[in-house]
Amino acid sequence: MGKFKLDDVDHQILDMLIDNTRVPFTDIAKSLSISAGTVHVRVKKMEEGGIIKGSSLTLDYKKLGYSFIAYVGIFLQNTSQTKFVLERINNIPFVTVAHITTGKFNIFCKIRAKNTEHAKDIIFMLDDIEGVYRTETMISLEESINDKKRLMHSIFNEM
Amino acid sequence: MGKFKLDDVDHQILDMLIDNTRVPFTDIAKSLSISAGTVHVRVKKMEEGGIIKGSSLTLDYKKLGYSFIAYVGIFLQNTSQTKFVLERINNIPFVTVAHITTGKFNIFCKIRAKNTEHAKDIIFMLDDIEGVYRTETMISLEESINDKKRLMHSIFNEM
Amino acid sequence: MGKFKLDDVDHQILDMLIDNTRVPFTDIAKSLSISAGTVHVRVKKMEEGGIIKGSSLTLDYKKLGYSFIAYVGIFLQNTSQTKFVLERINNIPFVTVAHITTGKFNIFCKIRAKNTEHAKDIIFMLDDIEGVYRTETMISLEESINDKKRLMHSIFNEM
Amino acid sequence: MGKFKLDDVDHQILDMLIDNTRVPFTDIAKSLSISAGTVHVRVKKMEEGGIIKGSSLTLDYKKLGYSFIAYVGIFLQNTSQTKFVLERINNIPFVTVAHITTGKFNIFCKIRAKNTEHAKDIIFMLDDIEGVYRTETMISLEESINDKKRLMHSIFNEM
Amino acid sequence: MGKFKLDDVDHQILDMLIDNTRVPFTDIAKSLSISAGTVHVRVKKMEEGGIIKGSSLTLDYKKLGYSFIAYVGIFLQNTSQTKFVLERINNIPFVTVAHITTGKFNIFCKIRAKNTEHAKDIIFMLDDIEGVYRTETMISLEESINDKKRLMHSIFNEM
Amino acid sequence: MGKFKLDDVDHQILDMLIDNTRVPFTDIAKSLSISAGTVHVRVKKMEEGGIIKGSSLTLDYKKLGYSFIAYVGIFLQNTSQTKFVLERINNIPFVTVAHITTGKFNIFCKIRAKNTEHAKDIIFMLDDIEGVYRTETMISLEESINDKKRLMHSIFNEM
Amino acid sequence: MGKFKLDDVDHQILDMLIDNTRVPFTDIAKSLSISAGTVHVRVKKMEEGGIIKGSSLTLDYKKLGYSFIAYVGIFLQNTSQTKFVLERINNIPFVTVAHITTGKFNIFCKIRAKNTEHAKDIIFMLDDIEGVYRTETMISLEESINDKKRLMHSIFNEM
Amino acid sequence: MGKFKLDDVDHQILDMLIDNTRVPFTDIAKSLSISAGTVHVRVKKMEEGGIIKGSSLTLDYKKLGYSFIAYVGIFLQNTSQTKFVLERINNIPFVTVAHITTGKFNIFCKIRAKNTEHAKDIIFMLDDIEGVYRTETMISLEESINDKKRLMHSIFNEM
Repeated sequence: MGKFKLDDVDHQILDMLIDNTRVPFTDIAKSLSISAGTVHVRVKKMEEGGIIKGSSLTLDYKKLGYSFIAYVGIFLQNTSQTKFVLERINNIPFVTVAHITTGKFNIFCKIRAKNTEHAKDIIFMLDDIEGVYRTETMISLEESINDKKRLMHSIFNEM
Repeated sequence: MGKFKLDDVDHQILDMLIDNTRVPFTDIAKSLSISAGTVHVRVKKMEEGGIIKGSSLTLDYKKLGYSFIAYVGIFLQNTSQTKFVLERINNIPFVTVAHITTGKFNIFCKIRAKNTEHAKDIIFMLDDIEGVYRTETMISLEESINDKKRLMHSIFNEM
Repeated sequence: MGKFKLDDVDHQILDMLIDNTRVPFTDIAKSLSISAGTVHVRVKKMEEGGIIKGSSLTLDYKKLGYSFIAYVGIFLQNTSQTKFVLERINNIPFVTVAHITTGKFNIFCKIRAKNTEHAKDIIFMLDDIEGVYRTETMISLEESINDKKRLMHSIFNEM
Repeated sequence: MGKFKLDDVDHQILDMLIDNTRVPFTDIAKSLSISAGTVHVRVKKMEEGGIIKGSSLTLDYKKLGYSFIAYVGIFLQNTSQTKFVLERINNIPFVTVAHITTGKFNIFCKIRAKNTEHAKDIIFMLDDIEGVYRTETMISLEESINDKKRLMHSIFNEM
Repeated sequence: MGKFKLDDVDHQILDMLIDNTRVPFTDIAKSLSISAGTVHVRVKKMEEGGIIKGSSLTLDYKKLGYSFIAYVGIFLQNTSQTKFVLERINNIPFVTVAHITTGKFNIFCKIRAKNTEHAKDIIFMLDDIEGVYRTETMISLEESINDKKRLMHSIFNEM
Repeated sequence: MGKFKLDDVDHQILDMLIDNTRVPFTDIAKSLSISAGTVHVRVKKMEEGGIIKGSSLTLDYKKLGYSFIAYVGIFLQNTSQTKFVLERINNIPFVTVAHITTGKFNIFCKIRAKNTEHAKDIIFMLDDIEGVYRTETMISLEESINDKKRLMHSIFNEM
Repeated sequence: MGKFKLDDVDHQILDMLIDNTRVPFTDIAKSLSISAGTVHVRVKKMEEGGIIKGSSLTLDYKKLGYSFIAYVGIFLQNTSQTKFVLERINNIPFVTVAHITTGKFNIFCKIRAKNTEHAKDIIFMLDDIEGVYRTETMISLEESINDKKRLMHSIFNEM
Repeated sequence: MGKFKLDDVDHQILDMLIDNTRVPFTDIAKSLSISAGTVHVRVKKMEEGGIIKGSSLTLDYKKLGYSFIAYVGIFLQNTSQTKFVLERINNIPFVTVAHITTGKFNIFCKIRAKNTEHAKDIIFMLDDIEGVYRTETMISLEESINDKKRLMHSIFNEM
């Protein structure tokens, strides 16, 4: 459905940026034996085409005092409230991910908290949103994998 | 427990990098009225201290043909197999997140696939790992929020 | 309870029609060494007796862009609303089957959609019917069997 | 992905066949003011293109003594057995539909039986297939909707 | 807490009545080498003491057209309604047993019906009682054991 | 399916026996203005026809020290073991009812015990039967209804 | 976070008090070769520091007629009612423990009752609290371990 | 069932000891206007009769670094292993309570841990016991009530 066409050069540029978003374009250019201008043009094109939506810093949440991760499943009173509830959830910075899902939950969230008590406060914030009927929480004992890079490389190798 | 101490300048640097990891250090320096060298030193210190673990590109998975997201809960035959199974899961690039969890699942994963059929193949890969007893899948109908930046800003504002 | 009596000839006629509803009556007649008029009379009798309720075309939904199948379990606020809700469901063409069931759901539906997003829209239509309390969705990863002909042949062989 | 292109005439022909698969081509031709040959060619093309996969008789199962419908969810010991188990299920004519599904079941079936006792026998046949770990049954109290024609008309009206 | 004291003769009388409530007292007397008057007095005492609460006929429900048995779990809106709802249930003769239970249901019933359709009607009667929030049904495929006599004999042998 | 035909006189006889299985035939005869011989013949016929399968004493289990009732759901390792397991269950007199069921359990039992500790012993007996995979128990807090007479009268009034 | 610092002497004093809260301070003093005054001062310090919050008698509930233990999970209509409901629960002396929990329940309680009937009354008291939506009960068949002393010794050995 | 008989004086003594197990007997004697010898005799009698089983120190677990509480439900492979598994559990000091329960779990435990990671280790210890099939964990967000004294006073007031 209108999938953006990337060629080999694009893939190689992305492959380098995935590993280090701060790598200078001149380094990419040298490594691929193309001009830095080309790199610039290609990246710009991929940004304008919406392939590259931005970049994000990977911080160590534990070192920042946020070692508690939980998944919270939300039951709504009625799915017509989905949009409204998601807007309210969007005001809670401790919710880093939210999905509309099939199965028993209407909305499924990932939260990061400082500790058990903080988690309780965040869960109560979610519970208190108008239209939220009930929540169920599953606590992470260890975040074993959190890595999109393997997927990205896999996508570009396969294309 | 040995939490890394960050001062106001560190916070302001991180605040700028969170929004754009590719912002040149000279821009950060100018904006904070400090020298580019200071920015460099501070970032290096935060990298060495493990606060900054890296950066990652935010790509548009839909445009790359990966519009299908699912959460897969894994039941193990025995939790003594947890480490072994996680190593096998780590070889499947389509699993972007995996947690050891409380509640009914032993391991809880997030997967990204091209479509229903591809998702089936990935779920079967998980099911076929030795020690995996059963899996249960919950499908995302819409990824409404996926944003760590709000949390990061919140952490630095609060500190 | 007033079960319609079919004889061997009826069975043989049905056996041929099951495989191809468009087979000409003259072909059936020849194959069974009876007159085309007899075939006509028998089929008419089975239609009037309500044994044959019609025929339906088997189209390839995937080729028509409808590759997404899901089962949706519906919880009602009160079963006195069952009839009303079923009438509303009947206005949603994407629901091809609906049952009143025992177990945890009040009504259980099969839906066909174009893709995940379309499925979400259909599920929301169901959720928004007055009297529907909650829904739970199970997604088909592959329709492995969809074949009433085996059953029909089995019925006629056994009778 | 390689969706077959149908034009208005094809849609109109399908619209007539959906309501009655036995309607003579001459009737279709007259109704659409085209030649019977054109109808023939178009239908043939749609059959060869795989759009029309066949036709099926709609019989009254109640009148034939098959008034009992149930959905059976199957848990496998291991999903690597899926294909093998589906082949075994395919030998049980009372299973009219089978899906590989997300959620708690590996395979989800629809069965038609004569009565409670017959249903028990069929469920035991499923339970006895090698590789089947457990089954869960949900019984239909009433088949309220079973109608693909609304969907088909909707598809052709929309295209 | 005030358990009624039965002696050996009482046990032996009960043992005979358990097997056949219509056995004449003279037969019991002869078999136990006591007078018929004694049997009479003992039975009367056990009736007055509330040990024997009556007798019931064991009919063949299948032969009477009631071959369908189901267990229905009832969720109430509030347990303060328990007494009220049980009075309403008591007006539905097809409910032969009802318990207030721990676990997920508030009230748990056994029903006997003529067939699937009749069962649906009874379940709807239960669902329509004011204060009933939801019901869940589990259908019996075969009543394999229904025998209190073994227990009774066991009680008297043990005492 | 070969339902036994009962006439009005049979119904009236049953109606009287249901209330008191020990009512003398002469009383029934007088009440219905028929001869005692006729009562005898009719009852005999209903016994031989299998309509009347026997009679059972209604004892007060609480007074006998058996005040604890529980429902136990049994999961089998494989349903091919159903018959074998039911034979073993049949040796435990504290199980008064057992059904093969749809839904999550394979077999569903009713047990009567002296107290919590005795119930534990009975549940362990069930758990220890070869082929039993797991059990789940639901405890009765009060047996509110246990009355087949209402149903029987209802059947005979309706016929 | 401000953990109270205990030294070896404190640990040894606690170790002795854990086993017998009524042990005279002179005995502790002799055993540890310190003065009774020192024991007094240390215990006082640990009481003032909040390490020792008191002592409790271990009675035999069975001998006192309270042999029935159950866990009751409480679902609230809304978590904003948590504090209010906990205050009400606090007025029911038969609830000895109550937690705000993750997972399916909002509040999870331990109750002690005299028998099944008393337990029913207590569960109904909980159910009747305003804001309580539903409860689910799990009954203890045997309290196999109830011993904090092992943990306390373990804590002091480890420190 | 051989319930120990306590008189008013016993109740008053217990009432005082419940509040403070270290209260000197001379204080109790003075308060109840009886001799210290009587207090001594009565307490001894209640200890020998098994009413008083001991006393336990109430420590502040949070201050000791044990702020994490969870309930762990254990599924056994077979209940014949119950005794064996409980012996193994008894070697894990972090399990302070364990019950054999009805409902979905075989054994239900309360654990106290230092933090999420420590809880994971304890859960893994439980999971690794031979005969343990699976565990499910529910985490306490706040221990709102933990008080047996209200119950004890209630028992003695009522007696």
